Amino acid sequence: METTVAVIGGSASTPEEAAAAEAVGQALAEAGAVLVCGGRGGVMEAACRGAKGAGGLTVGILPGTSRSEANAFVDIPIVTGIGTARNAIVVRTAQAVIAVGGSYGTLSEIALALVCGVPVVGLGTWEVHREGHPPAPITYAATPEEAVARALALAHG
Amino acid sequence: METTVAVIGGSASTPEEAAAAEAVGQALAEAGAVLVCGGRGGVMEAACRGAKGAGGLTVGILPGTSRSEANAFVDIPIVTGIGTARNAIVVRTAQAVIAVGGSYGTLSEIALALVCGVPVVGLGTWEVHREGHPPAPITYAATPEEAVARALALAHG
Amino acid sequence: METTVAVIGGSASTPEEAAAAEAVGQALAEAGAVLVCGGRGGVMEAACRGAKGAGGLTVGILPGTSRSEANAFVDIPIVTGIGTARNAIVVRTAQAVIAVGGSYGTLSEIALALVCGVPVVGLGTWEVHREGHPPAPITYAATPEEAVARALALAHG
Amino acid sequence: METTVAVIGGSASTPEEAAAAEAVGQALAEAGAVLVCGGRGGVMEAACRGAKGAGGLTVGILPGTSRSEANAFVDIPIVTGIGTARNAIVVRTAQAVIAVGGSYGTLSEIALALVCGVPVVGLGTWEVHREGHPPAPITYAATPEEAVARALALAHG
Repeated sequence: METTVAVIGGSASTPEEAAAAEAVGQALAEAGAVLVCGGRGGVMEAACRGAKGAGGLTVGILPGTSRSEANAFVDIPIVTGIGTARNAIVVRTAQAVIAVGGSYGTLSEIALALVCGVPVVGLGTWEVHREGHPPAPITYAATPEEAVARALALAHG
Repeated sequence: METTVAVIGGSASTPEEAAAAEAVGQALAEAGAVLVCGGRGGVMEAACRGAKGAGGLTVGILPGTSRSEANAFVDIPIVTGIGTARNAIVVRTAQAVIAVGGSYGTLSEIALALVCGVPVVGLGTWEVHREGHPPAPITYAATPEEAVARALALAHG
Repeated sequence: METTVAVIGGSASTPEEAAAAEAVGQALAEAGAVLVCGGRGGVMEAACRGAKGAGGLTVGILPGTSRSEANAFVDIPIVTGIGTARNAIVVRTAQAVIAVGGSYGTLSEIALALVCGVPVVGLGTWEVHREGHPPAPITYAATPEEAVARALALAHG
Repeated sequence: METTVAVIGGSASTPEEAAAAEAVGQALAEAGAVLVCGGRGGVMEAACRGAKGAGGLTVGILPGTSRSEANAFVDIPIVTGIGTARNAIVVRTAQAVIAVGGSYGTLSEIALALVCGVPVVGLGTWEVHREGHPPAPITYAATPEEAVARALALAHG
């Protein structure tokens, strides 16, 4: 069975986020991991582009009902047809998750990963806090390379 | 069609959270709203108890495959069988959401509500922050009564 | 907790199917059962109309992302947002299922009910056969009244 | 993007069904298609074994919450956690479906494929009939090789 790491982030992205996501995708492919993502644009597309450039394999877990909504760098589109509820499948399918930037969808995936016990590495993404609750076990990284190294260590941990 | 408001929170709760959830459930029932929740224990059960005490109707959207996992105050169990992915259904089914305390499941429901454009009222719950991202539109309330008043206003807004 | 019976059938229906579904909905309401359905038009709408005419309560488990897609006789819309996958939730939520006519969606709900062990009563609907497989436990009824009587007996069995 | 064909069938299988499924998996891999299945035992495992023996790539769309429930010949486990509702994802992810034997789960997948417009090829599987309804567009094949040839033609059609 293949090692799987998900890259989560917005379907719109800044140039900096796209560059970070592409570097993450490349490093995952170089390490031999399969890249899992939501299959759309923005951070997801940049991560897939990075992985394909390094000869990796990419899986896009799509919300809609057609494989045509996948970005051009997805090898295997999983056509869920279940909309936003597919966020839970993205994180469960991964052995670790790397969050790059993102909006509320990314926040929901971070939270669902925490629910499911999937390790989360953050790169310029959400922080969460509740008074009286233990800190959430999110590992914040400073660079794409650090994020990948930490995610792979957690995936195999 | 009925007005629906969801109460979200942990399946384990402190006495203070349970008291707050019960007051929320009671006030929703008195206002004629149908209470939607995840159908389990803790905050969900306390909210249902409050609603039933005031003659309200309660809907429990369960993660598992049997209606027997509903708490004793659920009138209509929705047996999804889709596990944590049902969190997306809890929030979509509501016209507004009130979060009472909670852990990562509650955080995921807050985030999914933000994705879906369902108004969120918080009562002693998570705060979220991402540098460079606009503040999340969560309305924080100080009391159960204020939470219900704000949620009903948002549900009809 | 309420007794729940689902009526499944096409979102388009012949006049005969609509009349049968309406009679089924009425008889379920008169027996005090909550009517569960997919919340759309055709057989679903006719069943809801019948139930409301007899003072019953109706639940519509919708495929889409908006309560506005419910027919006018749904009291409680469950907004799943998971598309056709919601068929599994319709049948699990019911203690028995009555199939009236229908096309492939109805056939999928019959099959999912058989998977989940939910009793199925058929009224002018699909027959299924596989060589070497035991006959499927579908109870065929000749009239709406017989269908409801059998479904209620099976729901409480 | 890869061509995807799903093999559906029971998690228990007769020796004849397992042999047919293995031959189907092998022929799909030889044709360069990615094998999609439910990831469990029986027909699913036999199909994956056949594909791996021919150097193919296999995707298992699992119902539960752990990749450990995948059979030993799954390369990429998709961990849905949504139970039987994942049947809709298996068929949507495929460009054509081959049904080998099977019980009610397989029947539900055939029906869901018909709902979603995914071509269905049957090999010793269910027949369905409803008076007054056009015949279901299921292509019955006599051998594994014929099933694969027809599925690939339909997938590219």
